[in-house]
Amino acid sequence: MKNILIIGTGKSTSYLIDYLYRTTKREEVGITLGDRDSAQLAPLKAKYPGISTKAIDIANHDLLHSCVQAADLVISMLPANLHIEIAKACLNSSKHLVTASYVSPAMQALDEEVRNKGLVFMNEAGLDPGIDHMSAMQVIDRIREQGGKMLLFESFCGGLVAPESDTNLWNYKFTWNPRNVVLAGQGGTAKFIQEGAYKYIPYHKLFRRTEFLDIEDYGTFEAYANRDSLKYREAYGLRDILTLYRGTMRRVGFSKAWNIFVQLGMTDDSYIMEGSENMSYRDFINAFLPFSHTDSVELKLRYYLKIDQDDIMWAKLEELGLFDNRKKIGLKNASPARILQKILEESWSLDEHDKDMIVMYHKFGYELDGKRHQIDTNMVVIGEDRKYTAMAKTVGLPVGMVALNILNGKITVPGVRIPIDKEVYAPILTALEEQGIRFSETKHPYTGYNPDKASK
Amino acid sequence: MKNILIIGTGKSTSYLIDYLYRTTKREEVGITLGDRDSAQLAPLKAKYPGISTKAIDIANHDLLHSCVQAADLVISMLPANLHIEIAKACLNSSKHLVTASYVSPAMQALDEEVRNKGLVFMNEAGLDPGIDHMSAMQVIDRIREQGGKMLLFESFCGGLVAPESDTNLWNYKFTWNPRNVVLAGQGGTAKFIQEGAYKYIPYHKLFRRTEFLDIEDYGTFEAYANRDSLKYREAYGLRDILTLYRGTMRRVGFSKAWNIFVQLGMTDDSYIMEGSENMSYRDFINAFLPFSHTDSVELKLRYYLKIDQDDIMWAKLEELGLFDNRKKIGLKNASPARILQKILEESWSLDEHDKDMIVMYHKFGYELDGKRHQIDTNMVVIGEDRKYTAMAKTVGLPVGMVALNILNGKITVPGVRIPIDKEVYAPILTALEEQGIRFSETKHPYTGYNPDKASK
Repeated sequence: MKNILIIGTGKSTSYLIDYLYRTTKREEVGITLGDRDSAQLAPLKAKYPGISTKAIDIANHDLLHSCVQAADLVISMLPANLHIEIAKACLNSSKHLVTASYVSPAMQALDEEVRNKGLVFMNEAGLDPGIDHMSAMQVIDRIREQGGKMLLFESFCGGLVAPESDTNLWNYKFTWNPRNVVLAGQGGTAKFIQEGAYKYIPYHKLFRRTEFLDIEDYGTFEAYANRDSLKYREAYGLRDILTLYRGTMRRVGFSKAWNIFVQLGMTDDSYIMEGSENMSYRDFINAFLPFSHTDSVELKLRYYLKIDQDDIMWAKLEELGLFDNRKKIGLKNASPARILQKILEESWSLDEHDKDMIVMYHKFGYELDGKRHQIDTNMVVIGEDRKYTAMAKTVGLPVGMVALNILNGKITVPGVRIPIDKEVYAPILTALEEQGIRFSETKHPYTGYNPDKASK
Repeated sequence: MKNILIIGTGKSTSYLIDYLYRTTKREEVGITLGDRDSAQLAPLKAKYPGISTKAIDIANHDLLHSCVQAADLVISMLPANLHIEIAKACLNSSKHLVTASYVSPAMQALDEEVRNKGLVFMNEAGLDPGIDHMSAMQVIDRIREQGGKMLLFESFCGGLVAPESDTNLWNYKFTWNPRNVVLAGQGGTAKFIQEGAYKYIPYHKLFRRTEFLDIEDYGTFEAYANRDSLKYREAYGLRDILTLYRGTMRRVGFSKAWNIFVQLGMTDDSYIMEGSENMSYRDFINAFLPFSHTDSVELKLRYYLKIDQDDIMWAKLEELGLFDNRKKIGLKNASPARILQKILEESWSLDEHDKDMIVMYHKFGYELDGKRHQIDTNMVVIGEDRKYTAMAKTVGLPVGMVALNILNGKITVPGVRIPIDKEVYAPILTALEEQGIRFSETKHPYTGYNPDKASK
């Protein structure tokens, strides 16, 4: 009997635990759930008879190592910066590791030792990163096997709210870490390639450089550029590709309204606002507007950002209560971004029965036999409720499947890896389809570069 | 006979050396000029008979210490980050120190030792910081001595080009480190107080939040906010002041056109542009614009930043040759800011006989005997040519005067200091007047807060 240790049982793990519990009953694999918060473990033990639980504080080095020692494979669902401690314990005890997070430089540095010990440390095995890699590489490999040459790859993903739970003017609710949503796009200029030309978008223009995307049955979405579009150029084997673009999807109109916050400076997390605790929502917005002896906050804002009287963006701001003089921020020594997050959480949190929605969309442009072609693929997953979210499903299921396939010997190549090899992605994508996570594929005329009309 | 050692003989030291040479012939003070570049020292030795010169590389610890040991006072005119090594040598040999730079935390940390040894380390003794402190504190102290209470202090300074040398559409040439001009305003949100309310301006809005200022005989200027408006609140004794604002002056229209660079992302120094060396000026601007199969760089830019056909900003861009397809950047691995600097230096460098201009403007609002008053003071200094600039004059003369007054025993209070005390500023401001650096003062109706009309 083999044993899987899952460290971290937070809200993104509902589907992961369910899936592993159901699947391993057949496969005779034991599961141990570890969490720092033992109160969180009791209901899990009651819900899943036969499962083991263990209070684990990863700061307790000896305890961590003894728990890892008792397992054959560890899944870390902790925040990304905490994986490295667990990775070292896995290496020390020669155990496999699975995470849904980006490979950090510290993780990458373990590669040689991991390979020497014949271990698999599979990272980026969730949704994005995760399913994006697998679903993209499946099509790219197929095009290459046919003898095609890749010209264009664009990839988009969004964690959104399902149409039936879409009840606010922003068409958005938080389905994941709200802080990451507020800070999205910061930390560097977005860089990508279009038709062979490098393009750069600074943060303060990011939310005005969106593109529209249509998804059959789900309508129109928009996408803004990710910072890291070129990150997987080498890994995907796309060194000479003409167009490489990755973006984040929102419902149409979100970004243009979000840009108000960016322009005002409300998403800045680098300084503390004076007197934040006793500031009203109205004071907060006014701190970014010029002083006036006479004019209202409303008119100053409309004038400053040139918002027309009949622009629906205005109703979006009002819906958040931003102009309220009585509501207090109530946060000591808070940054603008922290304050904005608090205001948004009041309006954008999922209700108990709200359903979220994951949308992923890839475009592949390629040349085959002297002709240019385009394939679009997309995936839409709707959640069940606030606990069983599409986000938890699309992150948790591939993580669980990868873990089982490592134990089953279906994933064998050792090292610090990401799921871009056929050995890894093919069985996982098949298993995901069985769980209702599937891509639909359509062919289109190639929409990229036309040399006859070009003027870069 | 006392000795002054000047370390650093770059372009900002022309007036300093002249002034000290002329003055010390009367006062029997010896001068030694030290520079890493001995080729720079030879013409100085020829020009100023009797002066000593010394090749000093401050990385040579023993040499630095022996040179400092031979002096009574050291003036460091090196870049600000190099002062601390010299300060330590001065402390070690118990010598006074004068700089024109901001007090760094490392410099401030020496305060107790400097005081224990009875030394004066006078920093911020140039123009800005320097003359701004002295001229502001003279008025503030006078208002306080009369029993007035400060309500408002606004202070502006600009290093510009004199009207007779103002030959480009930007009404601007580089009279100081071009890199600092390109990066101006970056590194944090501008913060100030207006009528008791804290206000914040993010970098991408800084150049659209300017105010106009009139200087008699010199016309209208504009000013954008400095990051550090609140920096001297304590030092100036203005803890409860309602309005505190510091800004940088430009000719009208400069900031609105500069904002084009900011919006495009051309002032970013945080990343390297791919293929910068072989990029044309036109490629550079196009890297920040969306790809198009058909549209020109010009139309894409006009559309992106909503620049009207008849906007004079456009001619400013054309004047720089920004749309030129043949001119190459020619800089390897350059950041956008570095590239922009190069392009601007081609157009904005002083010709040999160009004159620069320094403008400083203070507003003081105060209450006295139940009434509100306002005093405005301003200073304009015109340079002689590219070498004897107003910038070199207004930085160098106060530095030289402070140095002599320390040696003469007119400045006595020991410590790491800035020139905000009457003991320091009063004789210096008088001596500056004799050199043609003088403030004119006017009274105005108080333009600040009117409680009857207020709506913050």
